[in-house]
Amino acid sequence: MKTTSIEAQRFLACPTPDAWLENALAHLPTLLIDHANCEKKAAGTALGLLYRYVDKPSLLQKLSRLAREELRHFEQVLELMVGQGVDYVHLSPSRYASSLHQLTSREEPQRLVDSLLVGAIIEARSCERFLRLSEVAPAPLSGFYARLLDSEARHFRDYLNLAERYADTPLTPRLERFLAAETALITNPDSEFRFHSGPLPQTKKVNK
Amino acid sequence: MKTTSIEAQRFLACPTPDAWLENALAHLPTLLIDHANCEKKAAGTALGLLYRYVDKPSLLQKLSRLAREELRHFEQVLELMVGQGVDYVHLSPSRYASSLHQLTSREEPQRLVDSLLVGAIIEARSCERFLRLSEVAPAPLSGFYARLLDSEARHFRDYLNLAERYADTPLTPRLERFLAAETALITNPDSEFRFHSGPLPQTKKVNK
Repeated sequence: MKTTSIEAQRFLACPTPDAWLENALAHLPTLLIDHANCEKKAAGTALGLLYRYVDKPSLLQKLSRLAREELRHFEQVLELMVGQGVDYVHLSPSRYASSLHQLTSREEPQRLVDSLLVGAIIEARSCERFLRLSEVAPAPLSGFYARLLDSEARHFRDYLNLAERYADTPLTPRLERFLAAETALITNPDSEFRFHSGPLPQTKKVNK
Repeated sequence: MKTTSIEAQRFLACPTPDAWLENALAHLPTLLIDHANCEKKAAGTALGLLYRYVDKPSLLQKLSRLAREELRHFEQVLELMVGQGVDYVHLSPSRYASSLHQLTSREEPQRLVDSLLVGAIIEARSCERFLRLSEVAPAPLSGFYARLLDSEARHFRDYLNLAERYADTPLTPRLERFLAAETALITNPDSEFRFHSGPLPQTKKVNK
């Protein structure tokens, strides 16, 4: 694991709960399908920024390359799904990304900086989940997630560097707000299992 | 020029009018900016199909790779713009792609097949315009367009192959309708110069 991966783990305000990892092992096809959706969504989000910020050449270059890498990962998840006999069915998105994006400012330049911070958080969380999954998932998923770690950590760094570049006020207060919201989304029980969901509510064990 | 490029030229119902080429040479910065927009739009259109047709693995693989290549071209146009000192300002899109997409069916599976046919036509036209521009544009644009020719022709082929694969009725009647509409968009005077526009109205020469 490279320095940036460690940095991505430390950046987040909480680790993935063990209960989510148990859910993941019990829902591997859903994990893969939603992972494919997340890679597509990540490419789409970067593409959206390419439309909005045409006056920022280095942002355009960086995010276009990032979108290409997300699409490459999408293709790799697809291959893995075919190998595992997982049908790609439609899945509703989790509450995670939309809840974070709802907190972003509507006013520039804060809107851009907030979008970049949310991007950094999502990439850092993906990196952290890939690491945990690489430790507990069965092969070939374990190796696949281990191989994705470093590029996800790089994407986290790219988003954070861009946020630092375009911010005209200190990042910390905004970042703390987003990280607190993210912690709630990651630790509070969730209604459906997804790649970025909270843990499913625990079913009560009845002692007879 | 490879066979597929020649095939792409022959596929279209009309060549680019010479008047458009004259307009292009008089509007090189706009040509480059709108070209960058077209590459982004092409990636976005392919991404839209990745969302809609998750049950078609070979379409997903093919169009994800195509979207990555469009984004790579986007980055190359950006580099060229920086080298030429062209500022990336906002430009309204031309009537071209939206007019063609408006003709697509709302009912599946025709909707998919129509979208793929429109994709094939747009890629074929881009290929044809790249060829013409490579012959008349000043360096370094001429070389740049010559280098893009073959990948654009490949994209044309990819879209057409997918349309043939998913069609459940003969393609020819639909294709002829789209090609006739495209010919009108390419040959009728247009209000603004763009990569896929018709020629600008000719200003009358006053003989004194």
